[in-house]
Amino acid sequence: MTQTSEQNLIPDWLKRRAESSAHNIALIFKDETLRWAELYDKALLYAGQMAAQGVEAGARVALLLGNTPAFVCAIHATAQLGVVVAPLNTRLTVAELGWQLQDVQPALLLYDAPNAAKAMELASYTICPILSLEELAATKPIAIQQTEYYAKDQTHSIIYSSGTTGKPKGVMLTCGNHLWNALASCLNLGLQQDDRWLAVLPLFHVGGMSILLRSVLYGIPVVLHESFDPATINRSITENRVTIISVVANMLQRMLDESGDSGYPSHLRCVLTGGGPVPRPLLERCAALNIPITQTYGMTETASQVATLSPVDALNKLGSAGRALYPSEIKILHKEVSHDGVGEILVRGAIVTAGYFNRPEETTQALAEGWLHTGDLGRLDEDGYLYVVDRRSDLIISGGENIYPAEIEAALLAHPTIEEAGVVGVPDERWGQIPVAVVKLRENTNVTEAGLIEWCSARLARYKVPKRIVFAESLSRNAAGKLVRRLLKDSLLKKTE
Amino acid sequence: MTQTSEQNLIPDWLKRRAESSAHNIALIFKDETLRWAELYDKALLYAGQMAAQGVEAGARVALLLGNTPAFVCAIHATAQLGVVVAPLNTRLTVAELGWQLQDVQPALLLYDAPNAAKAMELASYTICPILSLEELAATKPIAIQQTEYYAKDQTHSIIYSSGTTGKPKGVMLTCGNHLWNALASCLNLGLQQDDRWLAVLPLFHVGGMSILLRSVLYGIPVVLHESFDPATINRSITENRVTIISVVANMLQRMLDESGDSGYPSHLRCVLTGGGPVPRPLLERCAALNIPITQTYGMTETASQVATLSPVDALNKLGSAGRALYPSEIKILHKEVSHDGVGEILVRGAIVTAGYFNRPEETTQALAEGWLHTGDLGRLDEDGYLYVVDRRSDLIISGGENIYPAEIEAALLAHPTIEEAGVVGVPDERWGQIPVAVVKLRENTNVTEAGLIEWCSARLARYKVPKRIVFAESLSRNAAGKLVRRLLKDSLLKKTE
Repeated sequence: MTQTSEQNLIPDWLKRRAESSAHNIALIFKDETLRWAELYDKALLYAGQMAAQGVEAGARVALLLGNTPAFVCAIHATAQLGVVVAPLNTRLTVAELGWQLQDVQPALLLYDAPNAAKAMELASYTICPILSLEELAATKPIAIQQTEYYAKDQTHSIIYSSGTTGKPKGVMLTCGNHLWNALASCLNLGLQQDDRWLAVLPLFHVGGMSILLRSVLYGIPVVLHESFDPATINRSITENRVTIISVVANMLQRMLDESGDSGYPSHLRCVLTGGGPVPRPLLERCAALNIPITQTYGMTETASQVATLSPVDALNKLGSAGRALYPSEIKILHKEVSHDGVGEILVRGAIVTAGYFNRPEETTQALAEGWLHTGDLGRLDEDGYLYVVDRRSDLIISGGENIYPAEIEAALLAHPTIEEAGVVGVPDERWGQIPVAVVKLRENTNVTEAGLIEWCSARLARYKVPKRIVFAESLSRNAAGKLVRRLLKDSLLKKTE
Repeated sequence: MTQTSEQNLIPDWLKRRAESSAHNIALIFKDETLRWAELYDKALLYAGQMAAQGVEAGARVALLLGNTPAFVCAIHATAQLGVVVAPLNTRLTVAELGWQLQDVQPALLLYDAPNAAKAMELASYTICPILSLEELAATKPIAIQQTEYYAKDQTHSIIYSSGTTGKPKGVMLTCGNHLWNALASCLNLGLQQDDRWLAVLPLFHVGGMSILLRSVLYGIPVVLHESFDPATINRSITENRVTIISVVANMLQRMLDESGDSGYPSHLRCVLTGGGPVPRPLLERCAALNIPITQTYGMTETASQVATLSPVDALNKLGSAGRALYPSEIKILHKEVSHDGVGEILVRGAIVTAGYFNRPEETTQALAEGWLHTGDLGRLDEDGYLYVVDRRSDLIISGGENIYPAEIEAALLAHPTIEEAGVVGVPDERWGQIPVAVVKLRENTNVTEAGLIEWCSARLARYKVPKRIVFAESLSRNAAGKLVRRLLKDSLLKKTE
C-alpha cells in the first residue's frame, strides 16, 4: 500500500473542529466564552505574532502563564506553527525555571502579568525574547504557513518532570500521545453531547493540559478556572453545568467541606481524581453523596491517564487505581522473586512518551524493550486491577504536585552546615503528604530549623520546602551506603506517634 | 524509539473486554442474553473447533450464516485464531456464492440451517470442508495458540463488493480499519454508559458487522435481530432500551408506518441511516416526531461510516451526507473543469481498506496517491458538507442492498436472444430503487419479459432480478460506443410518465 507515510498524518484537530463546530462553545472562563471559530482565529493570530517574533517551525516556545484563555490560545498557536510548546510550572523558583529554560532552549518565552517579576529575572538564563502577553498582542502578525496536518510522531509538547533522580527532564509528548489519550479516555469514560470538562488543575501539568486537547477532539467546552477556590468551583459545577471535573483528592475534600456535603447535581457524571489513591473516608463520603468518583493513575510520561477505577469499584477495590485503559497495557516487572506480587509498573501503548528531550540515555533506559519503566511500584490483582504501592518509591505527592526528595536533599546539602540530608513525605490531612527533612550536621557547625527552611525557600518552589526539619545523629542507609528513605520515614513516623 | 513495531500491535479487544466487563451484557437475541465472559468463552470454543477442522492461522473461513449469535461467535473466533473471516451474502445464488468461494479459497465454510440447501450445492465450487453449526458443535476442540494481540495492518475480514465493474472483489478490512471506524464513530456520535446498538442490517455487510466490533470496543450490548419486521423492531427499541439503531431509509419508513407515527422513547438517541440520502418527506416526518435521524455515507471499502449528517442539519442541509468524521478526510477529484463542483469522491484515513484480495492492480488503481477513489460522484459545499450526486455512477441501491447494473447486464447478455442490455435503477416507494432492464434483441429472435425474468432468477439473487424488462430498438451510447445508463434512465422515466 502507499499509505504508510500518510497513516502518520492526522488532520489539524483545531482547524477541523473550527469547521465542524464553529459556533459551539470551546471555552468558558469567568464571564467570557470563546467559540471554536474564535479560538481558531485567536490561535492563528498568536501564531502569526510568534512568527513575527522570529519563532520558526521546529523551535520551542516556553510559557509562563496561569490558567487563562491566553494559555489555551498559546498552546494551539504553537501547534499551528509546528512549534513545540513547553509550559513551565509557574510555582517554581527563578533558579528552577532558569534551569529548565537552559535545557529546553526556547525561541520565545511568553508570560502573563502575575508572572512578570519572575520572567524579568529569567533574562539572565536565556537569550530568547521574553514577551508579555501585551507585547505579543502589540506585535504585527506575519503570514504563516498554516498547518493542515500533524504527524502523529511529531513532538507537541515538552513538560518537565523531575523523575527519580530529582533532575528535571523534559518529557516529549507527541500529537499521537495526546490523540490516543483522548481516544482511550473517551472509550472508557464515554462522551456525551452535553459534556463540559472543568479544568482547575494547572494547565502546565499534563493533567490540566490534556483536558484542552480532549476538548478539541471531542468538541466539548472547557470550563477553565485560574485557581482553586472550593466555593467558586462548587458554584461553577452547577452554574456551568459541568459534567466532568479533574481534581486531586485534597481538592475534592475541600470542595465537599465547603458544600457542607450537600452533593452535586446529577449532570456531574465523573469526578476524575488523580494524584494517588483516595483515602477511604473520602470514598465513603462520595458514595453516601452519590458522587461519581473515578480514581486514576497516570503521569506526564503517559500523557495523563493510564488506568482508572470506576465509581462502582471504588469501595470494593479500595486502594486500587483500576484497570489499564484500552488499548494501553500495564505489566509488573519482577526483578527478583516477590512474594507479594509487587514489582515495577511498566506501561506500553500509544500514550507513552517518545522520550526525554535531549536525553537519549535516560530515554533508552526508561523505554527499554518497548515498555515505559515508570519507577513506580505496584501489583496487579487477579482481576487485573492495579495497586500502586509506592509512587516512584520516594515520590511525595503534596496537593497534587510531585515532589522529588532528591531535589530538596540537593538544596539542603548545598548548605555549609549539612553533611547528610534525607527527605520523606509524611501524611497530612490537608495536602495528602508534606515533605519533612532529616539532616545530620557537620561537626562543630550549627543552624536552626528556621534558618534551613529560609535557605530552602530561596531555592525551591514553596510546595517543596520542608515543613519540618529534624536533626539526627545518623541517617538510615543500606549496605551499599544508599539512603533508605523508607526506613527514615518509619523512624520519623514512630517518633511522631 | 523501539516502539515502531509495537505501535502496530493492539491488545486482543475481546479478551480485554471479557476481563474488564465480564458480567456485562454483550448480546441480546430474542430471549437470550450473552455476557462478555460467555461470548469470549464461546469464541474460544469455536476457535478450538475450527482448528480441529484443520483451519490454521493465516487461512480464511467463509460464513454462510444469518443474523444470529452464532455469527457473532464465529466472527470473534476467527480473530482469536488469526484467521480472516469472509462473511458471505446469504441472499446470493449458488452460482454467485460459488464464484466468491473460488475467489476467497477458504479453509472452511460454516453454514446454519436456513442456508443448508445452498451450502450443499456449494460443494462443487470448493474443496474445503463445509460444516453446519451442529457439525462444528460436535467437533472436539483442540488447544489453540490464544491471540494476545492483533496487528493493526492484519486483515480481519474480507467482504465482497461488486464495484463499478460488476465483478465482485473481496474488500480486505484490517483490524486497524475496524478500530478506527469505532473510534471515529465514537468521537462523532458519543458513547453513553447505557448505549445499546440494534443490529438488523445483515451482519455479512459492513454496516451490520461494524456494529459487532464497535460493541466490543465500547463495551455495549448489541440487540440483534434475525430479520426485519417493523413491528418487532419497534417493540424491541422500547423493550430493550435501544439507544442507537442502524437502518436504511426504507426500513425507517416502514417502522414509522407500522407505529402509526407514535414516535420513540427518548432513550433512542441516534437513528443512523445509510444507503443514500433520505427523502425529504421522511426527514420532515422524523423532525415532527423528534426522531434523531443521522444520515451517513460509507461503503465496504471504508469499514462503514465516512461522513454523517447530524439531526440538527437534516433539513437545512437537505440531501447532504454531512461532514467527514475526524480523522478521515474527503476531497473531490475534478478530472475536468466542472462548473457545479461535482467530481469523484476521494477518501483518506485509517478506515480505508488495505485493498482488494488478490487483486493488486485494482488495489493500486483504487488507492492511487494514498486516496480511496470511491467511484461515487459528489461535491462539497462551502461548509464542507458532502453531497453525493451519483452513487458509483450507476449503482442501484434497493432496500439497502447494492446492485451493480453490469452484473445483471452480464446475466442478460448470456441469453441467446439478447444483443444489448442496459440496467438502471428507477425510484420505488418501498425499496428506494428497483432495477429495470432495457434490452435489444438479436434479429429474428424472440423472448418474453417473463422468460427473461425467469432466466435472471436462476442466475442472480432475488433482489437483483430486474422487476421490469423493456424491449427497445437501440440503447443510448456515447461517442465511444459506451452505454450511457443515465440517458437510458432518463428515457425510461420519460416513457413511464
